[in-house]
Amino acid sequence: MSLPGAVTLVEVGPRDGLQGQKTVLSVEQRVALISSLAASGLSRIEAGSFVNPERIPAMRDTDQVLARLPATASVRYCALTPNMKGLDAALEAGVKEVAVFTGASETFTQKNIQCSIAQSLERFQPLIEKASQAGVLVRGYLSCTMGCPYEGKVALDQVASLAWELHQMGCYEISLGDTIGVGNPVRVRQLIEKITRQLSVEVLAAHFHDTYGLAMANLYAAMESGITIIDSAVAGLGGCPYAKGASGNVATEDVLFMLNGLGIETGVNMDRLLDVNTLVCSQGDFPNFSRTAKALLTARERF
Amino acid sequence: MSLPGAVTLVEVGPRDGLQGQKTVLSVEQRVALISSLAASGLSRIEAGSFVNPERIPAMRDTDQVLARLPATASVRYCALTPNMKGLDAALEAGVKEVAVFTGASETFTQKNIQCSIAQSLERFQPLIEKASQAGVLVRGYLSCTMGCPYEGKVALDQVASLAWELHQMGCYEISLGDTIGVGNPVRVRQLIEKITRQLSVEVLAAHFHDTYGLAMANLYAAMESGITIIDSAVAGLGGCPYAKGASGNVATEDVLFMLNGLGIETGVNMDRLLDVNTLVCSQGDFPNFSRTAKALLTARERF
Repeated sequence: MSLPGAVTLVEVGPRDGLQGQKTVLSVEQRVALISSLAASGLSRIEAGSFVNPERIPAMRDTDQVLARLPATASVRYCALTPNMKGLDAALEAGVKEVAVFTGASETFTQKNIQCSIAQSLERFQPLIEKASQAGVLVRGYLSCTMGCPYEGKVALDQVASLAWELHQMGCYEISLGDTIGVGNPVRVRQLIEKITRQLSVEVLAAHFHDTYGLAMANLYAAMESGITIIDSAVAGLGGCPYAKGASGNVATEDVLFMLNGLGIETGVNMDRLLDVNTLVCSQGDFPNFSRTAKALLTARERF
Repeated sequence: MSLPGAVTLVEVGPRDGLQGQKTVLSVEQRVALISSLAASGLSRIEAGSFVNPERIPAMRDTDQVLARLPATASVRYCALTPNMKGLDAALEAGVKEVAVFTGASETFTQKNIQCSIAQSLERFQPLIEKASQAGVLVRGYLSCTMGCPYEGKVALDQVASLAWELHQMGCYEISLGDTIGVGNPVRVRQLIEKITRQLSVEVLAAHFHDTYGLAMANLYAAMESGITIIDSAVAGLGGCPYAKGASGNVATEDVLFMLNGLGIETGVNMDRLLDVNTLVCSQGDFPNFSRTAKALLTARERF
């Protein structure tokens, strides 16, 4: 097993991190956050979500956020589009990538997006086709790949076949979510081994939550299995929606510290990222879940 | 690479975790803490330190703590003994294991124990001999094995030769400290590979700090390299002495969650450990650095 020479970090803080927050950032604040993330060298940023603002107020005015972002060839912004109405709004806003979201667990999918897994795929088919015709990339999120808060264990075969199906439907990339952070390095390896019997590892991204402190170990195992695309959120933004006060998305700073130590290229600057950490935590009075940021911001010792 | 079937957790919270705290726990509180840790199934517990109480008030009356602990064949308590006076007190208290402490970095050792590495070894020689004659095990701590807060990088050769020397002197076990948490999985693997050219991996323990969020990934790599002894502290007690507010010792709960997920035996009960977490955090109003404990205590969801 060897590690990759370079990894692409997909920053999900401005969407996955903010969407569940009680504090709703203004359009100006979200634009400042996303612009700073881009300035730190992140080349892919999930900038928002075209969802019902009544249901998720934190994602309101995603179109305005996107419209105010500086146009740059070095960053690709992505927006979550749960349905055709969302896609139309995203196309209108001119994003080059959208994302759809389903789960590997029936109960979770039902509670999260109010339909069965099969229904979610049916719903996505015309959406993916329309996006593709417009030259827009479609990312497929698959949640609960390591376990489900309602069903417990999720079968590897179920995850692998859904990943394959999403790819067949036109998703260029499948982001494997450990939504509740219950994965472990062996499970990660087994899952990737299973999925890559049908799909190239290059189409897979790791979207791991650090709820129980295992995200970094799991990401290391994922990289050993060939994964080169990692989702993370600055400051571990968002926490865990299923356990108040617990950590959720793995922190971008922590992932970057590990990648830097391993000599893996990312193009991301830690000092600038720490500035974003400070910015976003003060913007919404959000807790800082990044161990690296806490240590570096305090000690300012560099290794 | 295969993982071990069982791992021994060495609980260092009552010594390494408490020693730097401003809040000094009473003898009764320390006895309650250590007894609860033992009741959770931990078979090795670092119970205190025979140091100058003027310098480290939190370790005052370690003899009284040891005297009040329930005698049990299933738990081995250990006490840190920096010098002959400390050893005599430890022998008087009847412990079956003591520990000595040096570093792999000259500057750190000088600042931490006010002598050179060579001088520390000279000081330990008669101490180790006397302990051995009394039938007491001696553990050797080696700090800064992954990097030094003052010198930065530390050579693998330096660490390997010191580990060998401590073992030659009579230390039955060498605990490899990543004192400031700057290690990464590749460095861990390289270090263990280097040390085990001369020593069996069975004599090595991993004592990793989670300052930058890498301890769990590093422990996973250590286990892949054959390590079966892991030091950890309940609640990640103690934080980082070099970066206020940052995490220090890896949390026992997080390590246990990973080991449980991997099917590795420890004999430790998570529910009881969570009770200890609650106890110790309330005893000294200490922050809870364990991600697993935060998640489980909040959600009470089990996987």
